[in-house]
Amino acid sequence: MTYDPSNIFGKILRGEIPAHKVYEDETALVMMDIFPQSRGHTLVIPKAVSRNLLDADPAALAAVIPLVQKVAKAVKSATNADGIRLAQFNEATAGQTVFHLHFHIIPAYEGTALAPHAGGKADDAELAALASEIAAQL
Amino acid sequence: MTYDPSNIFGKILRGEIPAHKVYEDETALVMMDIFPQSRGHTLVIPKAVSRNLLDADPAALAAVIPLVQKVAKAVKSATNADGIRLAQFNEATAGQTVFHLHFHIIPAYEGTALAPHAGGKADDAELAALASEIAAQL
Repeated sequence: MTYDPSNIFGKILRGEIPAHKVYEDETALVMMDIFPQSRGHTLVIPKAVSRNLLDADPAALAAVIPLVQKVAKAVKSATNADGIRLAQFNEATAGQTVFHLHFHIIPAYEGTALAPHAGGKADDAELAALASEIAAQL
Repeated sequence: MTYDPSNIFGKILRGEIPAHKVYEDETALVMMDIFPQSRGHTLVIPKAVSRNLLDADPAALAAVIPLVQKVAKAVKSATNADGIRLAQFNEATAGQTVFHLHFHIIPAYEGTALAPHAGGKADDAELAALASEIAAQL
């Protein structure tokens, strides 16, 4: 399995298409998932190129995981979620739909089931508001 | 939220109760989940004490994530799975049932749905065989 740079996250990382960005530095981009499984579903996308966890550079993983943690805490604070699911899918059978490594940070709310992965598209204004609320907690 | 050392993974890490161990070093224990969501469902448990991702030491996370990757690759090789899901749950609402940080490595097989989290207990002989097959790939 190889990396195909035409994937949508590759395009976002190169600035070719827009995204609801929460945070960006030299190692990663953080943005809202436009098909959220719950309110505040956020993605952490390492800039180092890999298809998924299986072919990633271990040093790039070690560099990004503290940011994944920071974002998880910021999402929880911004959304008042009761819990947070961290998920990362490798290959289509496991649910991967975009073939550039990314970590899902999915808020869980008591009494509310998660929507299916890659279900309905969220409202852009709501995503923009959530992105700035989460950024304010980082 | 605080860490309660009486949790079952704390007991396993202290050697008070047995487990189907795959690998152990000074930073982490790798073992089979006895309530697997699929054949080969494996857990990576950092020895550094934290309730979950939210209160973990960032340096401990950076130290363990390369092992999580290594185990994911070993599980895929040992099981011939089509994909791998990485999951990590924070707080009960998000699906956390044991309150010591752990990462789930869950094989996905084409045409087979995952069992529910913490569903039926697996056969001990099968778990022991899987543990040694995965260890052989590490």
